[in-house]
Amino acid sequence: MGLSVTILGSNSALPTSERNPTAQVLRASGRFFLIDCGEGTQLQLRRNRVHFGRIHHIFISHLHGDHVFGLPGLISSLALLGRTADLHVYAMADLEKLLNPWLDYFCKNMPFVVVFHAVEPDVSKVIYEDELLEVVTIPLEHRIPTVGFLFREKPKERKINKGKCDFYQIPLRWLPRLKKGEDFNEDGRFISNEELTLPPPPAKSYAFCSDTRYSEKIVSLLQNVDLLYHESTFLTDQEELAAKTFHSTARQAASIAHQANVGKLLLGHFSSRYRDLEPFLEEARAVFDNAWIATEGSTFEI
Amino acid sequence: MGLSVTILGSNSALPTSERNPTAQVLRASGRFFLIDCGEGTQLQLRRNRVHFGRIHHIFISHLHGDHVFGLPGLISSLALLGRTADLHVYAMADLEKLLNPWLDYFCKNMPFVVVFHAVEPDVSKVIYEDELLEVVTIPLEHRIPTVGFLFREKPKERKINKGKCDFYQIPLRWLPRLKKGEDFNEDGRFISNEELTLPPPPAKSYAFCSDTRYSEKIVSLLQNVDLLYHESTFLTDQEELAAKTFHSTARQAASIAHQANVGKLLLGHFSSRYRDLEPFLEEARAVFDNAWIATEGSTFEI
Repeated sequence: MGLSVTILGSNSALPTSERNPTAQVLRASGRFFLIDCGEGTQLQLRRNRVHFGRIHHIFISHLHGDHVFGLPGLISSLALLGRTADLHVYAMADLEKLLNPWLDYFCKNMPFVVVFHAVEPDVSKVIYEDELLEVVTIPLEHRIPTVGFLFREKPKERKINKGKCDFYQIPLRWLPRLKKGEDFNEDGRFISNEELTLPPPPAKSYAFCSDTRYSEKIVSLLQNVDLLYHESTFLTDQEELAAKTFHSTARQAASIAHQANVGKLLLGHFSSRYRDLEPFLEEARAVFDNAWIATEGSTFEI
Repeated sequence: MGLSVTILGSNSALPTSERNPTAQVLRASGRFFLIDCGEGTQLQLRRNRVHFGRIHHIFISHLHGDHVFGLPGLISSLALLGRTADLHVYAMADLEKLLNPWLDYFCKNMPFVVVFHAVEPDVSKVIYEDELLEVVTIPLEHRIPTVGFLFREKPKERKINKGKCDFYQIPLRWLPRLKKGEDFNEDGRFISNEELTLPPPPAKSYAFCSDTRYSEKIVSLLQNVDLLYHESTFLTDQEELAAKTFHSTARQAASIAHQANVGKLLLGHFSSRYRDLEPFLEEARAVFDNAWIATEGSTFEI
């Protein structure tokens, strides 16, 4: 139960022999959401023992190759594996017209449907919702239209206080109503909800922000997020290059984390010029203490 | 000097956590030729320390995803690395119309040109030639138009016998003519070429045959090839499935190797159903002794 994110790739455009292009998988109460799909994502899913068939929703931040080149291979493999359930892809509208000719050619007689959901780059919107969570876009500032994604668990149900319910001999059929916060009121008896239940576990949240230059406009949307992945392609010594290429430094990522009062910061999307990632941590922690490196294959519980 | 082939991926369509889709790189006297380009090829090139920039020619056997999905990523990376030299791609004509919209979108302002060379599937032809080798297509029998590639070194120059040339005081300017086999004939002196030179090193050859069902039609083209890579997607227990899907078994691959009197056989393109590849060796060696497994990262000198 709860949220966790597994890093499948955390490098920027040019992959290295040790770091793959961007992809992550978010687990939410047994559901799997794929975020970006750089080349090699299907291999990384296998290596990290994520069962392909449980991915029903793929969120693509922007249409640079290092975030999408894994889609044809992943979708092909799903077809070979006999998938029948719809696969939902949330991305800028252009993806559909780029991907469809490839799917038509390479995945003839596909046993399932790829449903494209066009994302608007300039407004923050709920683009996905189920009974457990919702996904909200975060407009970012990159060289091409780009959004981040905020995964937000919905408020959870209160927990039944079994001892108290036994003591008051509350009928079982009342439990769903109690979980929703209702007071017990039957046969002349009134017992307040607080007496019969415990507070719900906190609703958790995860925000993925890549690629983007430093922009304080996103701070309000990120307020109090439990875990923030913010790109940090460069260190401060390349701050000019970061600005020019619409990327961020580790210090800038930490500054956003600090301003938004997030719980924890994950740094990623490292330029392949850096072999040693320790300096990213040092730079970020000078501004925001609870900062970590998104190393491949690692899972962060939220 | 000479030929060698490095295996970047040797699995069939569905990659496993340990085996990548098809790609190989052939080194020929300092030149690099890429054969097929499954997803993740650029990562495998990096892991095997093959310098991207030295690849100028890519040969694609057929347009199934597991043989081409690595092209957009590789070409993107070459563009990011500032390549300027033309890149030649030899493949079925459809590739150009599939790939170009992606290159136009994802690789804007590419600093080099991708030159497509359409391959004919039904005839054996020389499709590439330089002063050292030529590449000849091998029509194969798969579900879609497919060719293999025969890399054949040209006959090499004879070696100068230094001791003899010194003894006869042969002028230096004669050496290139002696290497080409000319007899020495000057100032009334005649010395036969055999007296002044040694036989040339043998011209080597490599044949790549994947994907294909068992077909004896290719035997004549493969006669006496030094190294043959022949797909063996299945073991004999799946011979019916092999026939149905236009693939081969290890025993069939070995039979082709035996009939063509090749020097050595490499087995590859294994179905992901097989974890242990030893049975492929056993099955092949019962028919053709010098058979080997194309394990990833291994290099075979020819």
